[in-house]
Amino acid sequence: MFSQPIKRLIESLCLLPGVGPRSAQRMALSLLKNNRDNGRDIASSLINAIDTVGNCKYCQMLSDEEICLICSNHSRDQQTICIVEGPAEMFAFESSGAYSGRYFVLMGHLSPLDGITPEDLGIDKLLHYIKQYNVNEVILATNSTVEGEATAYYIAELLKDRPETKVTRLAQGVPMGGELEFINYNTLAQALKYRTELTDT
Amino acid sequence: MFSQPIKRLIESLCLLPGVGPRSAQRMALSLLKNNRDNGRDIASSLINAIDTVGNCKYCQMLSDEEICLICSNHSRDQQTICIVEGPAEMFAFESSGAYSGRYFVLMGHLSPLDGITPEDLGIDKLLHYIKQYNVNEVILATNSTVEGEATAYYIAELLKDRPETKVTRLAQGVPMGGELEFINYNTLAQALKYRTELTDT
Repeated sequence: MFSQPIKRLIESLCLLPGVGPRSAQRMALSLLKNNRDNGRDIASSLINAIDTVGNCKYCQMLSDEEICLICSNHSRDQQTICIVEGPAEMFAFESSGAYSGRYFVLMGHLSPLDGITPEDLGIDKLLHYIKQYNVNEVILATNSTVEGEATAYYIAELLKDRPETKVTRLAQGVPMGGELEFINYNTLAQALKYRTELTDT
Repeated sequence: MFSQPIKRLIESLCLLPGVGPRSAQRMALSLLKNNRDNGRDIASSLINAIDTVGNCKYCQMLSDEEICLICSNHSRDQQTICIVEGPAEMFAFESSGAYSGRYFVLMGHLSPLDGITPEDLGIDKLLHYIKQYNVNEVILATNSTVEGEATAYYIAELLKDRPETKVTRLAQGVPMGGELEFINYNTLAQALKYRTELTDT
């Protein structure tokens, strides 16, 4: 019932993550009904970003400059490096305000079945950086999933012969505001195992 | 922390209906991380639709032809016309498979505060069509909201001097599968008022 260009638009909007056919239809009709300028704006910013954004030479973060805003900020600790799977995870750390070191963005995780190898993640570049800047600490902040853990383990193995570089992993435990009743048992077991002593602070 | 083209992309994706800053960020990063071809596809289908889709000469439906697929389908009843607020509502009727007449798509509803007048909705064109095709029945299928009801009332008033054209409104009542406990009281009152007699069918 919709004409061809509308059908094509709906189909392509379905390519957006988290958008199904119904939301795509709603978006397409709304843009065509009375927001055509918004539609043009979206298309142009999309093409602009695709054409200008590459990866930072050091940390692989998405960036329109050769060196991203964080790697070019000299007030950040060059000798601490936090390894994350993607830009969204890096954004989460930055939003927490609790970290002032550098990052290395893998842009994925090891996944032999999907053909994603250490080379694809830029592990060579990471090791080179660690040697060059004589990094003190590598924080393995990959996701707490099977692939994330495997990737962290792989990197930790590679760093075993560098005792001068401490390798750490994010603490596991009860999330703040989390109700124990609803937390999965493995998390609870970890939280119990790594319980900390109360001190006067 | 994100570079300028990424920020601009996130902001413009927020223009999509139902997309907030967090989903927009997720979409932008996902498209840039590993779906750039999808991004180009979305941009091109958006521009293509914006450039080629206009409104049907008869019913105002979005269409890339002068006359839309429904208005150019001669097997559809020309003398019954269903008035809807937008393309999505028309799509809902078509999906129900219960209607074989024509439509008239207002592309909005009367809203004096927003400056939306009968001319903006193409009411003149609608009246012209009704006269020209000597329409038997006009089904007022605007939304069951204040503005939708006001628009329906306005059109009904204009058709008062045409006794040859029957003017109807969608039945109000309990939606199929609806649980009475959760239905609002006004709907329940309407359903009770317009209750129908059980007949052998």
